[in-house]
Amino acid sequence: MLRVAGRTLVPGAILLVVTLLSAASLELAAAAAPQQQDAVAVARAYRQAHEVEILQFFSGLLRRPNYGGNLEDVTAVAGYLEEQFEARGAEMELLRLPDVPPLVYGEIKVPGATRTLGIYVHYDGQPATGPDWVNGPYEPVLYSGRMDLGGEPIDMPEPGEAVDPNWRIYARSASDDKAPLPALLTALDALQGAGIPLTSNIKFLFEGEEEIGSTHLGEYIEAYGDKLGVDLWLFCDGPVHQTGVPQVVFGVRGVTGLDVTVYGPARPLHSGHYGSWAPVPGQMLAELIASMKDADGNVAVEGFYDSVVPLGRGELEAFERLPLPDEQLRAELGIGWTEGEESLAERLLLPSLTVKGLASGSVGADARNVIPDRAEAALGMRLVKGNDPEHMIDLVEAHIERQGFHIVREDPDMATRARFPKIAKVIRAGGYPAARTDMGLPVVEEVIEAVRAATDQTVLMVPALGGSLPLYLFTDVMEAPALILPIANHDNNQHASNENIRIANLWYGVDLYASLLTMR
Amino acid sequence: MLRVAGRTLVPGAILLVVTLLSAASLELAAAAAPQQQDAVAVARAYRQAHEVEILQFFSGLLRRPNYGGNLEDVTAVAGYLEEQFEARGAEMELLRLPDVPPLVYGEIKVPGATRTLGIYVHYDGQPATGPDWVNGPYEPVLYSGRMDLGGEPIDMPEPGEAVDPNWRIYARSASDDKAPLPALLTALDALQGAGIPLTSNIKFLFEGEEEIGSTHLGEYIEAYGDKLGVDLWLFCDGPVHQTGVPQVVFGVRGVTGLDVTVYGPARPLHSGHYGSWAPVPGQMLAELIASMKDADGNVAVEGFYDSVVPLGRGELEAFERLPLPDEQLRAELGIGWTEGEESLAERLLLPSLTVKGLASGSVGADARNVIPDRAEAALGMRLVKGNDPEHMIDLVEAHIERQGFHIVREDPDMATRARFPKIAKVIRAGGYPAARTDMGLPVVEEVIEAVRAATDQTVLMVPALGGSLPLYLFTDVMEAPALILPIANHDNNQHASNENIRIANLWYGVDLYASLLTMR
Repeated sequence: MLRVAGRTLVPGAILLVVTLLSAASLELAAAAAPQQQDAVAVARAYRQAHEVEILQFFSGLLRRPNYGGNLEDVTAVAGYLEEQFEARGAEMELLRLPDVPPLVYGEIKVPGATRTLGIYVHYDGQPATGPDWVNGPYEPVLYSGRMDLGGEPIDMPEPGEAVDPNWRIYARSASDDKAPLPALLTALDALQGAGIPLTSNIKFLFEGEEEIGSTHLGEYIEAYGDKLGVDLWLFCDGPVHQTGVPQVVFGVRGVTGLDVTVYGPARPLHSGHYGSWAPVPGQMLAELIASMKDADGNVAVEGFYDSVVPLGRGELEAFERLPLPDEQLRAELGIGWTEGEESLAERLLLPSLTVKGLASGSVGADARNVIPDRAEAALGMRLVKGNDPEHMIDLVEAHIERQGFHIVREDPDMATRARFPKIAKVIRAGGYPAARTDMGLPVVEEVIEAVRAATDQTVLMVPALGGSLPLYLFTDVMEAPALILPIANHDNNQHASNENIRIANLWYGVDLYASLLTMR
Repeated sequence: MLRVAGRTLVPGAILLVVTLLSAASLELAAAAAPQQQDAVAVARAYRQAHEVEILQFFSGLLRRPNYGGNLEDVTAVAGYLEEQFEARGAEMELLRLPDVPPLVYGEIKVPGATRTLGIYVHYDGQPATGPDWVNGPYEPVLYSGRMDLGGEPIDMPEPGEAVDPNWRIYARSASDDKAPLPALLTALDALQGAGIPLTSNIKFLFEGEEEIGSTHLGEYIEAYGDKLGVDLWLFCDGPVHQTGVPQVVFGVRGVTGLDVTVYGPARPLHSGHYGSWAPVPGQMLAELIASMKDADGNVAVEGFYDSVVPLGRGELEAFERLPLPDEQLRAELGIGWTEGEESLAERLLLPSLTVKGLASGSVGADARNVIPDRAEAALGMRLVKGNDPEHMIDLVEAHIERQGFHIVREDPDMATRARFPKIAKVIRAGGYPAARTDMGLPVVEEVIEAVRAATDQTVLMVPALGGSLPLYLFTDVMEAPALILPIANHDNNQHASNENIRIANLWYGVDLYASLLTMR
């Protein structure tokens, strides 16, 4: 029996959202069409003959800074990608809105093709700040294995020398989400070199502000929607399953969040002359955050789980057949307890509230004997089917108010401070809702078959990733089905310092795209 | 009736510590001896003729980085001070222990003098990191007033031009604790220039690691104690009273603290793929910190107030006559509530527990969608008479354990992580106990008289500052009385960014030292 957030769930219960179906779908598979098998073999042979050149090209791409908040940097990456795909015969175009990262758009028209596949990648990356980068985030370094498990930096081999598939490249966006780009380009090179024709028209859509919330993707779709008709979108992003096997994902959680600042004295005070009298913002913030979860790690914000759309009976049954990597993950992550009482897969069916960051004064060797003037928390939320982003922030704001805080949108002036004993500045993040695609569509079966042809491993069918992509714009706004086909290793440090990709996962990407580009 | 930490105090109650006596002592004053009046007048005239030169000299001193953790920097400052005081006829010496900041020692022997005054200053400063410095911490800038109240940077005037006493100099250590040094040197220059003899032998003791906990001062005193016999120590540090009037302070709170790190996953995780399942260290730390105080802001750590030595009946009566600047301070600091129900003066009679810093992941524009691997808090404690520093840390550690945490001293390995669900690394700070000097000693009366001669304002007698100095080494180890004679303005941002001193307070320092050096 499923228990979520401490409540027992039965079919029809109000809590669950997004199905995690499973091995049921393994039975869908038909044999891959002959041209796919050829295409995968050709791509594999081409890649084996050019491994070092592909890694050199990829390193060059990783050297290009791509934080979406830096317009000059991302625009340069966009222009570079336009050139690279043009060189492979695509008709490319940079779609523009004023003062935001361009959308790299492109088409490959295939004579006689009756189907159009849309391929989405995002070329921007998370910020690359933080003290924990062993190498510069935009200085890709090849490692003999995972650096925290003893992997050592190694020189890039000469062309023709052997490349161990367990090596990794460390750099920002190595996985998230530059990896699909060299994989796609290599697949195109291999197929074109062998004269194997594509079987679908292709539209490329490479976004430049996914990691800063895809703030303008909706506007882009409104402005350029007439170009963007496809039969199926393929989202190339995210990691493979934690068990290491490929997955086809039918949905994502949504995302939003808020930044909360609470205030102590108007200026930092000497902790001796005022300590035990002046309000301490770090203490106030700690008490506020502590009030947001119960002792089991479930969110205690009123109404937080109320809008979650429940699963049906069949989905629940399928869900129970999913592999549960929890014990492996607990050991690998050194986790001694988890939030709630349920498995990871079950917890991903719930909205989350996460302290992504805390800051007040200084800690460690930099700590000073002051009562800081403020304390700040970055709170992230992941949303499931049924959760409206604005409504979820409203719920958290109502909770903050119930804890006695007056909410402001800018730093309070002295009059506001005089009027309200406890003040919280809340900056609401952008965000978007969860999304899901129907597993029963014919084109979905064709894709699953193509994925199977690209790997000799089991392929998992997962109704929703825990992570987020702006998939709803495609499924709900443009009303086209969308599947996610991740290639990165799950331990890629995505969004954190020392992001990396395992070389074997990059090679899987080459095989995957070769298969998809030639699918039945 | 006094209420402290929510409990009503009567004489003999177990909570209070250190008296804050008051206007009672204003009646002690005899008229200042004639030579002091002359000396103050001479010093004032000398200063008025050299104001710009004094500020230029002070700016030069402020340009010298003085964080005690940087041995090269502080040693250079020590050598510079040795030269400056030698130039005024003091016999100077740098006392050394291996690999720690030197103690600058010096003597001025006065023929016929029967009394020796020890003058303590610390020449090191707090770390000067942090993003909020408007100017570089070691780039002193003159301002027309308090920068957060509209003060503007102004050029240093030419010698002979007017200096407004409400101007301020902004730089690290402008108040804490370099300010006494130009004041002392100027007083010596003025007295020597006018041929006015000193009335006491003087011993200088300038410490170089006060802001990093005076870790080796005890060893220095053990090694060089034979040089350090005096009749009275004058501690030149700290701010004047919040009402702006000078004070003579008879004691200090002690200080200690601890740094607490709690652990989530062994590496930062994507907040989508693991959010609502993986433990969130910022949440765990918030819950731990929240548990340390009750809803009124009193410390909820078991036994925290138990060792506090109570005040006697007479001290309580005197205490109630002290001016209470709370309303002024609340307005000035924009504080809408305070910890506990008592006045600031009452709260300073209790030990404090303060969140000096919080850090986990990143906030604001740098926030990333991760579950960080750890969260860290710097917790400071101020101690009152009766509190043993080690015992107070023990109490907090016992509290942390009662919240379910296993305490470690280094980052936990995977075996430790597997064994204990919740782990807290606790780094215990150094520290020292509170101290107090008897108000009734004859030499104390002579000092009070000298302070009165240096100002036309009321002088407050305060039995203990909220802040800390290693005074116990003098009062309890060397067994000499010690008084604190602060000169800095109370709103000096001591220990924080944009530290400053008001010029009028620097001038008060010149008058004060001229008076003390020539006291009856």
